[in-house]
Amino acid sequence: MAKAIPFATLIIFFLVSTAFAQYQTGQQSQQQQIQLQEARQCRIQRITPSQPTQRIQSEGGVTEMWNEFDDQFQCAGVAALRNIIQPNCLSLPNFSPSPRLVYIQQGQGLIGMSIPGCAETYTSGQQSVRGGGVRTRQGEQRDQHQKVHRVRQGDIVALPAGVAHWCYNDGNEELVAVSVNDLNNNANQLEQKLRSFYLAGGHQQIYSSVQSAQQQQLQRVTFQNVFRAFDENLMAEAFNLPVEVIRRMQQEDQRGFIVRVTGEGMRMIRPEEDEEYEERYQSRSANNMEELYCHLKIRQYLDNPKEADIYSKQAGRINHANGQKLQILNYMDMSAEKGNLYPNAMHAPHWTMNAHSVFYVTRGHAHVEIVGSNGQRVYYDTVNQGEMFVVPQQFVSTMRAGSNGFEYVAFKTSSQPMKSPLVGYTSAFKAMPIQVLANSFQISTQEAQNLKYNREHQTMLLPPRAVTSS
Amino acid sequence: MAKAIPFATLIIFFLVSTAFAQYQTGQQSQQQQIQLQEARQCRIQRITPSQPTQRIQSEGGVTEMWNEFDDQFQCAGVAALRNIIQPNCLSLPNFSPSPRLVYIQQGQGLIGMSIPGCAETYTSGQQSVRGGGVRTRQGEQRDQHQKVHRVRQGDIVALPAGVAHWCYNDGNEELVAVSVNDLNNNANQLEQKLRSFYLAGGHQQIYSSVQSAQQQQLQRVTFQNVFRAFDENLMAEAFNLPVEVIRRMQQEDQRGFIVRVTGEGMRMIRPEEDEEYEERYQSRSANNMEELYCHLKIRQYLDNPKEADIYSKQAGRINHANGQKLQILNYMDMSAEKGNLYPNAMHAPHWTMNAHSVFYVTRGHAHVEIVGSNGQRVYYDTVNQGEMFVVPQQFVSTMRAGSNGFEYVAFKTSSQPMKSPLVGYTSAFKAMPIQVLANSFQISTQEAQNLKYNREHQTMLLPPRAVTSS
Amino acid sequence: MAKAIPFATLIIFFLVSTAFAQYQTGQQSQQQQIQLQEARQCRIQRITPSQPTQRIQSEGGVTEMWNEFDDQFQCAGVAALRNIIQPNCLSLPNFSPSPRLVYIQQGQGLIGMSIPGCAETYTSGQQSVRGGGVRTRQGEQRDQHQKVHRVRQGDIVALPAGVAHWCYNDGNEELVAVSVNDLNNNANQLEQKLRSFYLAGGHQQIYSSVQSAQQQQLQRVTFQNVFRAFDENLMAEAFNLPVEVIRRMQQEDQRGFIVRVTGEGMRMIRPEEDEEYEERYQSRSANNMEELYCHLKIRQYLDNPKEADIYSKQAGRINHANGQKLQILNYMDMSAEKGNLYPNAMHAPHWTMNAHSVFYVTRGHAHVEIVGSNGQRVYYDTVNQGEMFVVPQQFVSTMRAGSNGFEYVAFKTSSQPMKSPLVGYTSAFKAMPIQVLANSFQISTQEAQNLKYNREHQTMLLPPRAVTSS
Repeated sequence: MAKAIPFATLIIFFLVSTAFAQYQTGQQSQQQQIQLQEARQCRIQRITPSQPTQRIQSEGGVTEMWNEFDDQFQCAGVAALRNIIQPNCLSLPNFSPSPRLVYIQQGQGLIGMSIPGCAETYTSGQQSVRGGGVRTRQGEQRDQHQKVHRVRQGDIVALPAGVAHWCYNDGNEELVAVSVNDLNNNANQLEQKLRSFYLAGGHQQIYSSVQSAQQQQLQRVTFQNVFRAFDENLMAEAFNLPVEVIRRMQQEDQRGFIVRVTGEGMRMIRPEEDEEYEERYQSRSANNMEELYCHLKIRQYLDNPKEADIYSKQAGRINHANGQKLQILNYMDMSAEKGNLYPNAMHAPHWTMNAHSVFYVTRGHAHVEIVGSNGQRVYYDTVNQGEMFVVPQQFVSTMRAGSNGFEYVAFKTSSQPMKSPLVGYTSAFKAMPIQVLANSFQISTQEAQNLKYNREHQTMLLPPRAVTSS
Repeated sequence: MAKAIPFATLIIFFLVSTAFAQYQTGQQSQQQQIQLQEARQCRIQRITPSQPTQRIQSEGGVTEMWNEFDDQFQCAGVAALRNIIQPNCLSLPNFSPSPRLVYIQQGQGLIGMSIPGCAETYTSGQQSVRGGGVRTRQGEQRDQHQKVHRVRQGDIVALPAGVAHWCYNDGNEELVAVSVNDLNNNANQLEQKLRSFYLAGGHQQIYSSVQSAQQQQLQRVTFQNVFRAFDENLMAEAFNLPVEVIRRMQQEDQRGFIVRVTGEGMRMIRPEEDEEYEERYQSRSANNMEELYCHLKIRQYLDNPKEADIYSKQAGRINHANGQKLQILNYMDMSAEKGNLYPNAMHAPHWTMNAHSVFYVTRGHAHVEIVGSNGQRVYYDTVNQGEMFVVPQQFVSTMRAGSNGFEYVAFKTSSQPMKSPLVGYTSAFKAMPIQVLANSFQISTQEAQNLKYNREHQTMLLPPRAVTSS
Repeated sequence: MAKAIPFATLIIFFLVSTAFAQYQTGQQSQQQQIQLQEARQCRIQRITPSQPTQRIQSEGGVTEMWNEFDDQFQCAGVAALRNIIQPNCLSLPNFSPSPRLVYIQQGQGLIGMSIPGCAETYTSGQQSVRGGGVRTRQGEQRDQHQKVHRVRQGDIVALPAGVAHWCYNDGNEELVAVSVNDLNNNANQLEQKLRSFYLAGGHQQIYSSVQSAQQQQLQRVTFQNVFRAFDENLMAEAFNLPVEVIRRMQQEDQRGFIVRVTGEGMRMIRPEEDEEYEERYQSRSANNMEELYCHLKIRQYLDNPKEADIYSKQAGRINHANGQKLQILNYMDMSAEKGNLYPNAMHAPHWTMNAHSVFYVTRGHAHVEIVGSNGQRVYYDTVNQGEMFVVPQQFVSTMRAGSNGFEYVAFKTSSQPMKSPLVGYTSAFKAMPIQVLANSFQISTQEAQNLKYNREHQTMLLPPRAVTSS
């Protein structure tokens, strides 16, 4: 009996520890669920500007992804990635259930979108081949396809949800494209998770600095070739092609999602350089969504100083791409702005009334302060080139450019974002009577006057203090 | 002491097992919550076409319900049911917080909707009775009510959220109506759960093949007579009626929710057969929602070959009911299509860019393949008459009709759904330059050419392979 | 050995109880999560009309808050509060991520909103001060600011999300303002939780009748001074002000969020009394959101008998403020109604088709019955002055005024709410053919006739029974 007791306690120990372990597992995943929930509701303690944490190496380039489970991205409901496409390489056709804005950080290329119902009225000259297509008198065969868009450094490009698109680098340097997907968008009826459905290509080996098995699993879910899964005979019948061709189209592909182009044919594709054509259709009311999308402009140059929405000789400039300027953004409910701040210039403290803002630093560095909904600083430090950070809706933030200036592109989750600054010509304080300010802050009317008018000649961007001479 | 030990361990055992059991209970319900969450986010491993699993027998017919907790319906955010109304029987007045599309699979009937603020300008002749109403010269009393709509086999009918409606089978055969409610719709500010608020009638016995006590509880929550719960004296005062009448109106009703009509009066109700009247009001901008709804057409015949949106002499046809054709759908953000495929014809592989699709097989069978967001098949098998299945947004699917052809109606969670096919005149591949395809799939330009143009004369519907002669 | 055993069991006991306790903690918070979830989905067993449960005492008034975790408010997705501002006191500038409707229950005051981009074209005369501003010939300095709105008892005021606003009581009695924030509104991309971001002021001591430490924490999160958190040097630079001024602006403020005004200056602020100016801009299509908001009317008098939307000499009246009358409500997707019922008059049993309704009793009491989605009464009792209660979308409710009459204001979560009554001129039953009613309720055609027509001369409001003489 006395011997049996330790055994009994052993069993109990086992049971207890099992229950406890299982309980902890349940607890943990529950904990994670709650953390996720908290982050999605922007109950954020601290913003952490970050570099991409995942990396997919392809034959013709690299796809770098920011950790979408990072609190700040969960709060904004976005996923961010950076594609680096080598010269003469092609990012394979894919589509996504959420709308995407792309900023071309470097290089140039061609982007094509397949919008069902739009006419294939754009032709490319190419070597004569046997069979279909349109043949010219010279025996040269001309391929017909939908519009191809020229994109260059400084462009913002709008990719609506569900539209298959590809991108080809026809320049001489790397094409670097930074993308933000709005996962919370009404267009996305699937989950709040980045998904790209590829029509071709496949995974190669994945390199990642910080990556657990779980993250690798998540990554596999994020990018997938959907064409490969289909029955080869069914596809052969659907395409009216020999099954061997389908089999080749579906075979394991070690090139990844960005591939090197063989032959010279791609260089013959002509983009639609004349954007005036598109403009003319902007105001026409289209019969249906397809037709509407066919004629909408999808890109805007964000770096043109002459088109700056806010300009200060001493502080810098801001260019907007919103629903008024780029009509397609109204249907996507996203927008962007590009800011160029001169050395030591400031962006006025402000809040965005109706959108989250996802900042990507394109050049230089800045000192940034963000104050959260609980009245506490969630960030007060430097941000550097290549980093991304989120300023949630209503959070108050300010930025001071470093000694070399500061450039950023900010992606926003509204097509008509409204910024309310505390300082300057359009400031919330300037809109208030002096007595309201004097009584609010217990300052003299003279001080309240200064609070209102000391910066009245500046809008959003403030020159360095020493420079101001009022 | 030695005796005390087993007792102590017994107590421990008891505590452990209690804690463990309770933990498991918590774990389970948590598990269920997470499963539900997963399904709602369309993280689906497998689609399972299904028949209704619940059945409410009423005096005048049967209500059959699909299991709304099935992963596929949770993903699409819809609930489906099939009403079978016997001749001369009435589906009692009810309303629901989510909009509903109804497909009349068989028979004919009358549908009335009570829209507050619309005029009661439709009259029915009936026997003279004492009291109110409009009396004609002949002493015959004519009842005034709102518009009554004639519905017939092949019609799709739109029922906006919150509108009380009834349906009467005035034909000689069973009226079979298949309905899909869009629970995720913006109009529904309650939970993602089917609810019908009945103004009359009540539960009879419930028959169900697979039904737990929990499911029965859920069912009781789904359909309820709300009028019965009110205080009889309050109602007597509200209606200015004797309390005995209210008491009779509220009494337990064993007839269920579909009742047999007594007397001949119902046959005298005149539907508004002239739909041109409605059309005329379509473009007028109404002052308010009520007035807007008063004049909108609520039904469309979906089986008219002459009005097919897509037609192929060799493959079949597709008819659409969307926001352009049936304006009320714009306010409901739902739509439908009817497909009739000839034997062995195919529906091109495609994805729907902005909507989930809920398919109901009205005739025949088909071989269906659906590829999910993780690049895996979620379905690859036959679907049969009477079954329902969901193709989530962006999932790629294709269907090949069986040897007797295939007919379906698909309900969609957008008023302007856009399908992007891989094959045919409007295909994503045809919109791309040949060189993009050749490089994407590592095929020759000739093969890419064939990929683009082999099906260029077909749109969405593909004739059986043997028939194609290019 | 024998001694070791109790010790072993003791350890086990400890482990078990620890695991159990931790498990229970997890269980509890999970339980709370599930309860919250249930409430948010309006699975409500019982509605409980309530008074505010929290109270923040400020120097110049009191802020009283209803418990936003109450099931009924979670279901409606709203948060309610009541501000009492003493004469010559100022509610400090603040903004919120969700839109707010305010009903002025008592007193009068001035409300200012800072809308970025709107012109500061309204001037106040004031004592001459040194420095900036506009100086008139008389040496008097005139302050320029944005429009200031006069509000009086009976007004409903619309405050869009993110707009900084302040309120000054320039009358001789307390200004009492009841506010409802629509947290579930599309404009709010943060959590379903009331948040007010104050630009000035701070917490004083908090008084609360029923308040746990957790609640106090929540309250601290709800109202916060965001200006105080910013680095003083950064702000000095941004505002181009001496750092001492910023330091004073940021110092701990024991005055709370409503402060006593010093000096006479506030009395010189001129409200824009002429609303016709605003009206003229109503139909103009604005270039952007800012401009649009600049010219929209933000208030409407809800207590004008001459403008009643529903009027009965014997029963009372209802005034609506919806998107048709007050255009800004279309952008906020909220609305309100004011009901004045005579003694013993009834509001017809009805359901609101597309909105939750948040009732606040402004005078008298009523007997209210609410029937929920499961066909059970969720309320059947009296509601009294100062209480708030929610009638969820589709729930059927009726009210009978007490012996002194009954007045309420109802806030709604749609800009175009539609009520479907069971009784009266616009009733669901009156829209149905008599035979449908007779067969639905198994009553005679004569009784069905009475059901339809006994109240045909009344709309929504029903006179006491004894009074009706038809």
